[in-house]
Amino acid sequence: MKRYRAFCFDLDGTIYRGKKAIPSAVDFIHQLQKKRLDVFFVTNNSSKTPSQIKETLRQFGVDASEKQIYSSALVTAKYVREHFGKAKVFVIGQDGIRHAFKQQNIAVVEEQPDVVVMGIDREITYDKLTKACLAVQNGAALIGTNEDIRFPTEEGFHPGNGSFVKLVSQVCNVEPVFMGKPSPVMLDMIRQEYGYAKEEMLMIGDNYDTDILCGIRFGCDTVHVNTGVVRTETVKEKELQPTYVVDDLSGLEI
Amino acid sequence: MKRYRAFCFDLDGTIYRGKKAIPSAVDFIHQLQKKRLDVFFVTNNSSKTPSQIKETLRQFGVDASEKQIYSSALVTAKYVREHFGKAKVFVIGQDGIRHAFKQQNIAVVEEQPDVVVMGIDREITYDKLTKACLAVQNGAALIGTNEDIRFPTEEGFHPGNGSFVKLVSQVCNVEPVFMGKPSPVMLDMIRQEYGYAKEEMLMIGDNYDTDILCGIRFGCDTVHVNTGVVRTETVKEKELQPTYVVDDLSGLEI
Repeated sequence: MKRYRAFCFDLDGTIYRGKKAIPSAVDFIHQLQKKRLDVFFVTNNSSKTPSQIKETLRQFGVDASEKQIYSSALVTAKYVREHFGKAKVFVIGQDGIRHAFKQQNIAVVEEQPDVVVMGIDREITYDKLTKACLAVQNGAALIGTNEDIRFPTEEGFHPGNGSFVKLVSQVCNVEPVFMGKPSPVMLDMIRQEYGYAKEEMLMIGDNYDTDILCGIRFGCDTVHVNTGVVRTETVKEKELQPTYVVDDLSGLEI
Repeated sequence: MKRYRAFCFDLDGTIYRGKKAIPSAVDFIHQLQKKRLDVFFVTNNSSKTPSQIKETLRQFGVDASEKQIYSSALVTAKYVREHFGKAKVFVIGQDGIRHAFKQQNIAVVEEQPDVVVMGIDREITYDKLTKACLAVQNGAALIGTNEDIRFPTEEGFHPGNGSFVKLVSQVCNVEPVFMGKPSPVMLDMIRQEYGYAKEEMLMIGDNYDTDILCGIRFGCDTVHVNTGVVRTETVKEKELQPTYVVDDLSGLEI
């Protein structure tokens, strides 16, 4: 394999699956860390704070600092600060997204927002969705942390944040902006903050439509692993191919 | 105007708007009733029981018997009984749909349903939607009382039942069946139960995509009134035209 400086990992399906670690991935990360190569964790999950994600990784045997963790919540908050300045934001979402807005000193309001931000919210209600719809009809911008329509769990697919953003978008007839993968915003933030060249970066993930397309759109090399939600056979039928296609990360030489 | 025997009215936007009666419509219904012509009320609203709808109409000056009221809840329950026999049903919805299933002696369950029925539910939660998604992934049929993506209120558009059915449909990659307008099921039930010919029936409504298309698909004449959500100008641009286009029902001679 070509030499890279920054290895960007998806989490669920790549480092662990549900409640179990994927040993080949954990080993691979240990090897990178031993060689003092840079490791990043890039997740569409907006519900957890960096410290909660760090703790999850620790339980699977992976040591990470919060600075290595890029979630769609963090990027969304940074994006709103950059593009909307002192805007008031109505937030649908859980801990992660609320924490991120607090950290960026952005005012979270219930009435007359300039921006509606939607992340996964397992306590979503008809009233919250109606509030979002009315705000967007009154001119607020609509931002989704990520566009995943569904996500896999042990009992089957659960509704993803994208399915709720799409609901609001259809009710209001307004196109949303999405921050998470496959949007290249998270990888671009890593590049800017650490000064890598795109050729020095590698995006590793199990989901073609989010992880691999994210790397391709950003313009870096990609690795597809067959340890999660999208099988190798399915990936091989795609027009745009990942740089590497492996069963698991034991098949990759650093 | 040609002579008809059965006059089928939409409710909101046709007989009343929000909390106000539309006098020309109420007068028109009084004239029909005086001439002993048959009047029906055909609504996509699955949240209210026939007796609640009867009471609403009474407040606007319209006397109706419960037998004249056809709601998407009623038709859905009858449809499930006819097509799924002794099926167990998981219901998302309010009073109207629950009442209709009780009346049809259909078992409403929380676990392992054969059919998932969705009507508007202002207390919808992530858990209810997830339950619906998992049941459909396990093979349950997906039926929506109506496919309205949004409905107008005084403060703007609120999310309609169709937007939630679409969410489940997208998460599960399954096509739903819809009962309410523009599906012709409700008009066909009236025809069957009273023995009208299609030429004797008239569908009157303000919403082109639900009321007018329902009549056209069913095969009866239609009246578009300019008192609700879709303007006359918009209707005149459509390829399939209503039989009559009027500002309000004072413009129609019986």
